[in-house]
Amino acid sequence: MKIEAVDFFYLSMPEVRDIGDGSQDALLVRVAAGGLVGWGECEASPLASIAAWNCPMSHSACKPVSASVLGQPIDSPDDIRRINALVRANSLDLLQADHTLSGIDVALWDLLGKRLGQPVYRLLGYDRAHPKLAYASVLFGQTPELTFAKARTQRQAGYRAVKFGWGPFGRGSVEDDAGQLHAAREGLGDDGVLLVDAGTVWGDDVQYARQRLPALQACRAQWLEEPFVSGALESYRQLAGEANGLRMAGGEGCHSFYQAKNMIDYAGLGYIQIDAGRIGGITPAHQAAEYARAKGVQFVNHTFTTHLALSASLQPYAGSAADDLSEYPAEPSPLASDLSCGALQPDGDGYVHVPDGGGLGVEPNLGAVRRYLVDAEIRVSGRIVYRTPEI
Amino acid sequence: MKIEAVDFFYLSMPEVRDIGDGSQDALLVRVAAGGLVGWGECEASPLASIAAWNCPMSHSACKPVSASVLGQPIDSPDDIRRINALVRANSLDLLQADHTLSGIDVALWDLLGKRLGQPVYRLLGYDRAHPKLAYASVLFGQTPELTFAKARTQRQAGYRAVKFGWGPFGRGSVEDDAGQLHAAREGLGDDGVLLVDAGTVWGDDVQYARQRLPALQACRAQWLEEPFVSGALESYRQLAGEANGLRMAGGEGCHSFYQAKNMIDYAGLGYIQIDAGRIGGITPAHQAAEYARAKGVQFVNHTFTTHLALSASLQPYAGSAADDLSEYPAEPSPLASDLSCGALQPDGDGYVHVPDGGGLGVEPNLGAVRRYLVDAEIRVSGRIVYRTPEI
Repeated sequence: MKIEAVDFFYLSMPEVRDIGDGSQDALLVRVAAGGLVGWGECEASPLASIAAWNCPMSHSACKPVSASVLGQPIDSPDDIRRINALVRANSLDLLQADHTLSGIDVALWDLLGKRLGQPVYRLLGYDRAHPKLAYASVLFGQTPELTFAKARTQRQAGYRAVKFGWGPFGRGSVEDDAGQLHAAREGLGDDGVLLVDAGTVWGDDVQYARQRLPALQACRAQWLEEPFVSGALESYRQLAGEANGLRMAGGEGCHSFYQAKNMIDYAGLGYIQIDAGRIGGITPAHQAAEYARAKGVQFVNHTFTTHLALSASLQPYAGSAADDLSEYPAEPSPLASDLSCGALQPDGDGYVHVPDGGGLGVEPNLGAVRRYLVDAEIRVSGRIVYRTPEI
Repeated sequence: MKIEAVDFFYLSMPEVRDIGDGSQDALLVRVAAGGLVGWGECEASPLASIAAWNCPMSHSACKPVSASVLGQPIDSPDDIRRINALVRANSLDLLQADHTLSGIDVALWDLLGKRLGQPVYRLLGYDRAHPKLAYASVLFGQTPELTFAKARTQRQAGYRAVKFGWGPFGRGSVEDDAGQLHAAREGLGDDGVLLVDAGTVWGDDVQYARQRLPALQACRAQWLEEPFVSGALESYRQLAGEANGLRMAGGEGCHSFYQAKNMIDYAGLGYIQIDAGRIGGITPAHQAAEYARAKGVQFVNHTFTTHLALSASLQPYAGSAADDLSEYPAEPSPLASDLSCGALQPDGDGYVHVPDGGGLGVEPNLGAVRRYLVDAEIRVSGRIVYRTPEI
């Protein structure tokens, strides 16, 4: 079959707030071929990713993503890999193309899985999918009291592991952060797994991060995520060397396999966190999962949005028993929860299961798409480059 | 003074051809503050970079670039550095933001230089600017005969060094490439400096690159540029280890200081090539130049477009005598040559001089801006996000 159409649906909450909640908007991608449709999502900035789909060509290595996708045959996993490589080469100098490609690649795997009646992980070569312990991913409360309450709430909801991130953490004093960490530990109880996400707040400055190590260790955090921006390899490695058992996690900003590989090779990570909606789709995410396994670094999904995105980010490591954790968006916006209707609820033991149907096993709720759809239009030299499609 | 307005002018040749000539379009940025204007350029994909300027916020770390720029005070170099860091933090998840920021940062340095009556390199801390040997940067001919003729032409035009890149190189047989290289060497004569740019054609595959080493060595190429994509650190280092004196060059794809640093630290490069229009502007380019110097890697500009972009990419290493080469766009499109009117002609010895006036010393030709201006408009939820401004 050939790729006949690719459509982008820009969804948004009526009001987007200035907080670290990435589920407040979404860019849904629909790919049509052979009478079937596949769905994917790009993270983040819907408008910029839409612009990269159909912008005018700048030169031979700065083509719109559409130039390498429309009309391509897609009958096998190798076709998807070929299309992925083609986009990278033809859109080498179009930075945003990697995020646009991500949603398309996800949709192609969904489509092919439906066509072949196989879950995506099986097309990737895994015999079976191992359940993952879902960790609830939430923002720090504005005060330790609110963080304590959040920790309690998530434990009561059945999560054995909770990650707190962003919000005030790292922005105030060392004592403020210690207060937050102790509140989180107290709320989780002794046996809860505590994960901490600094949201790149220290840039590349090891000194600020170092000051938080004693409280992180006292509260038995299992990892410290993104003390630094993706790519600050030396800072990561230096802190990892001083962290005395506290392991470093990072990588969500990677938008190519090579960036993930370099984080694995040089950053001293314990965990590599990959978002299929950013790295270029399931194709490079799977490549990163295989590389991480070979290097003894644990692979974890990065997902803070919908269950469609969650399924996409789980497939690349679904078959690896040792990679046993999953980020689970526990405070999704109404948009994110409406869109995928809680398709992937954790089981009674707190494990999330990758769906076993064809493709990703998560269909977007079209009523929600209509409800949150943003009207947008891009014109260049009188030509309509993009207009919000009908759904 | 405060940043009052930022305007983007999307320029394009009437027809953009499917060749590796990045000068066929341009995104010109004008920043206004305190009754002055500064000019910069973003590389590449004007439409995607425009979208990143004023797209709706997705969350606290995915804001449009405008949110961190408009209204900011700008009275010193540290203000520009502060604005640069602010954009990186607030637009962390907006991939294209780095290219948008690049043009703005360049324009801010131009503006501040005009305000203070100083060339940008002096604001960066250099006492003087050292002339750079201009190497003519051209595409390989479609045949060895055409490449030979190009080499002759550039020598006759006064260039002592010529770089050939892209076109058919690396896409045919090893013998085809050898034919191209020998033609280039013959056309240059024994004393010409030959540089070769593979344009990432081999992805990360060392094997293909390795097969070309004998001809590159026989023809005494001074460097092999971009055998692999930016970020394929291990492939670069492996080839560098086998290249027996032929040095590796790369880095034009870097869109942050960290990526440049990682190339310097781990890729075994002899030359790091930075485009101020991509890395995030003059601010991180200067940071990369200083780091390269400390690590014994030669810094070279990447410029294939206008003389405004050329001046921007020269400033970061202008004061470093050891970094003595400059890429010089020797086959610019009519757009690129009209826009900056050949402001930076090499002298009789083939050296290019950084202008000594205030700012970048290159003003765009406004007549050319009007002539090549592309009409574009972006609307989101009834709001005009972008409309081609009057000039």
